[in-house]
Amino acid sequence: MQDGTLLAAVDLGSNSFRLEIGRLDHGQIQRVEYLKETVRQGAGLDDERQLTPEAMQRGWDCLARFGERLAGFARPQVRAVATQTLREARNREAFIAHGSALLGFPIEVVSGLEEARLIYKGVARMLPQSDERRLVVDIGGRSTELIVGQRFTPAAAASCRVGSVAWSGRYFADGAFTREAFDAAELAARAVLDEVMTQFPRDSWDVAYGSSGTVGAAGSVLASVIEPEGVITRAGLAWLQEQLLRARHLDRLRLEGLKDDRRAVIGGGIAILRAVFAQLGIERMTVAQGALRQGALYEMLDREQPETDLRSASVRALMRRFAVDEAQAERVARVAVALFTQAAPAGGERAARKLGWAAQLHEIGQRIAHVDHHLHGAYILEHTDAAGFALPELQRLSLLVLGQRGKLRKLAGPLEDADFALQLMCLRTALALCHARRDPDVAGLALTLQGRRCTVRTRAGWAQAYPQSAYLLREEGKAWARTPWEYATEP
Amino acid sequence: MQDGTLLAAVDLGSNSFRLEIGRLDHGQIQRVEYLKETVRQGAGLDDERQLTPEAMQRGWDCLARFGERLAGFARPQVRAVATQTLREARNREAFIAHGSALLGFPIEVVSGLEEARLIYKGVARMLPQSDERRLVVDIGGRSTELIVGQRFTPAAAASCRVGSVAWSGRYFADGAFTREAFDAAELAARAVLDEVMTQFPRDSWDVAYGSSGTVGAAGSVLASVIEPEGVITRAGLAWLQEQLLRARHLDRLRLEGLKDDRRAVIGGGIAILRAVFAQLGIERMTVAQGALRQGALYEMLDREQPETDLRSASVRALMRRFAVDEAQAERVARVAVALFTQAAPAGGERAARKLGWAAQLHEIGQRIAHVDHHLHGAYILEHTDAAGFALPELQRLSLLVLGQRGKLRKLAGPLEDADFALQLMCLRTALALCHARRDPDVAGLALTLQGRRCTVRTRAGWAQAYPQSAYLLREEGKAWARTPWEYATEP
Repeated sequence: MQDGTLLAAVDLGSNSFRLEIGRLDHGQIQRVEYLKETVRQGAGLDDERQLTPEAMQRGWDCLARFGERLAGFARPQVRAVATQTLREARNREAFIAHGSALLGFPIEVVSGLEEARLIYKGVARMLPQSDERRLVVDIGGRSTELIVGQRFTPAAAASCRVGSVAWSGRYFADGAFTREAFDAAELAARAVLDEVMTQFPRDSWDVAYGSSGTVGAAGSVLASVIEPEGVITRAGLAWLQEQLLRARHLDRLRLEGLKDDRRAVIGGGIAILRAVFAQLGIERMTVAQGALRQGALYEMLDREQPETDLRSASVRALMRRFAVDEAQAERVARVAVALFTQAAPAGGERAARKLGWAAQLHEIGQRIAHVDHHLHGAYILEHTDAAGFALPELQRLSLLVLGQRGKLRKLAGPLEDADFALQLMCLRTALALCHARRDPDVAGLALTLQGRRCTVRTRAGWAQAYPQSAYLLREEGKAWARTPWEYATEP
Repeated sequence: MQDGTLLAAVDLGSNSFRLEIGRLDHGQIQRVEYLKETVRQGAGLDDERQLTPEAMQRGWDCLARFGERLAGFARPQVRAVATQTLREARNREAFIAHGSALLGFPIEVVSGLEEARLIYKGVARMLPQSDERRLVVDIGGRSTELIVGQRFTPAAAASCRVGSVAWSGRYFADGAFTREAFDAAELAARAVLDEVMTQFPRDSWDVAYGSSGTVGAAGSVLASVIEPEGVITRAGLAWLQEQLLRARHLDRLRLEGLKDDRRAVIGGGIAILRAVFAQLGIERMTVAQGALRQGALYEMLDREQPETDLRSASVRALMRRFAVDEAQAERVARVAVALFTQAAPAGGERAARKLGWAAQLHEIGQRIAHVDHHLHGAYILEHTDAAGFALPELQRLSLLVLGQRGKLRKLAGPLEDADFALQLMCLRTALALCHARRDPDVAGLALTLQGRRCTVRTRAGWAQAYPQSAYLLREEGKAWARTPWEYATEP
């Protein structure tokens, strides 16, 4: 990307939606504009985990305004990420479809771990360079992310289902601040955090940072009273809680430095922050500037180059974690990508890269069982955390792995997309050619796509030399005959 | 078990149902009786993988007769296993429920790999002792099992969806034997076998054995003509196929040694056998006597002792395969089993062992993702192959892993079973006690069950010393309040 390019990140958080626009300048991104709206969508999830119509509408109204600001941006310049509230909402598809249309760019839900990783990236990019081992805590509206890392690389990350909006709704719904409510809220938060504590022993980090709303609010209240600016201590937290207890109710709370949009969620936020301090053994936390949206901006830069594309590294890690036959995985990827590149119209590099990843991962389900391993592989990709990937991307890989063999009926929906269909044809053809787990003889072999008809041509004598491969390609013809696509072999 | 004890195995195969009754005699099982009925249930699966009413009825009629013979047998003396047809049938539950009632004993569907392992065990037990590395091939009605092993231990095993009933229906449905049909059938069989070939390189075995119907039939026809008795060679197979081609149709086929119940499936069987010879590089195969049912009989003996219970070894293998925190897994298992043993009425050893396995495996889903790992663990157990386990046993472990945390609504059905409910209470209590991944202080702690009320008592001061554990136990009370069970803590 050229210097001067504008990049934009939209963060659809549980408490606020944010838009950050930056300008690329020698590998740094300089802020051009920052918009924030307190949508508090996370408070609009009902007991059945359905977003209420009102919460949807508040989100859409905000996205329409952001969309107006983003008019003129091209697709590769914008990334919109959604987090815990939309991870949880059962009716998220409806919200995302209309929301993406209003925004003008696709909204991607990211997993908790991916959110944590992006937060770390955003925080690390905004801090001075140093070799200190950093703990980063981000208390969001419905989830809290914890990360330990050094420089720009996270070493451990976790996402916990505890957040200021959720906790305020659960323990301070009537606005009353009582000692019992604080104790119950803190105990419950500790129980959730406890599950991931083994990943963050006290000797694994040197300095603690906090990012985002709750930490920022605590920091700015304390800065106006007792602490050095931008620092939160245990004593400061105790003082803060004491102020809330003395006020006894939200309505009577007067705290210098506390913004109005924070008031409603300060009770839950403080309880969680105290739980975080206790559980992690923190004495002192520094308020950091970076957050999810900065991470998303820098991620766009890194994805530009295959060697810095974290997704490639994640795919390799998954291959190892599920102990795939790497030689076969790389072989199938090589053949599939070569076929795709032959057949695809110009500009298919992104789709080719994704096809390669699906091919590298096509056998991960074997770790669960050989029988129906394509189903298990698809399940793993649908549920695993893979750094650098948004959930819709993993979903796409999952569908390719699912479709690697067997009938295609199950993929009727996705096959309406021509890119997907061609990716799948190339993957299945590569699997047929690599059936013997040896490098196939593909001299003179060509795959072309005209309209909805795919043709695989082989040189004279090839089918006689490789009867098993030829048989498998003919079987492909039968499988595709039941779809809107056609798959023919010649001669 | 004492010498003289009678043991019975029922094999619900795709071609025949078989009943084998043996008497225990110094670690060997001597045949007392053997019944076989050609039910050919595998031919009664329609395109939607539904067992037809006729195929169900044929099976039930046979099971009713077997059940009459088994009257007077106790539960630990009988094992009934079902294979590929019931693995595939979507409506198997209906068949199994009524079939188990008619038989008087539960019918267990086993996975393909488990079938392979039992076949190897049966074959190995019936062969002379030797250090030779054995390849065992069992061509069934709808699946073919391949195993390589030494003495009683399989080293590699696979189950392929190719069988004599299925292949005869697909390639020789009209009864005509043509060269084209044989070529197509053999090519298709090779394609299926090809998927597992890397597990069976030619240098991994010394002697090839074949068991069950197709191999037996080929062996007995050839014995009456050209081969030494009990041996099948490539030349012999070629001769056999030639006889079928010359007859041109099933109705005109006259072959000495071919039993009537084999005729209808000989075409598919021979094509598969030729594919097996070609694909595995076999020149000569010896007909072996043992089969699945003998394996099932000897398995009953081995399960008697924990140290020879293959299931314990399988659980440890799964723990390693999915890289669980073994210290925590063993800790939770220890605590859960201790609680269960306290609370359970006498005779709960089997249920306690299964609870221990579920506890050892409760975190395997973390390999897929930390979030919702109980769902992923349950998925793995529902689909993985674990030697020694029948599918319903894995299903039970899966449900315990699923229920380890969160709401219990999803388990309303299984919780009607008191054993399951107590297992789950003990597992969840153990998880609460072990939350800090340290050995918990359980001095004076007791779990008792009276009717549908479970009570956990702790010594004075315990709740103050361990507030987090006490909190988690109180949360358990809330979770169980929405079930027919009650869970109380005292004081």
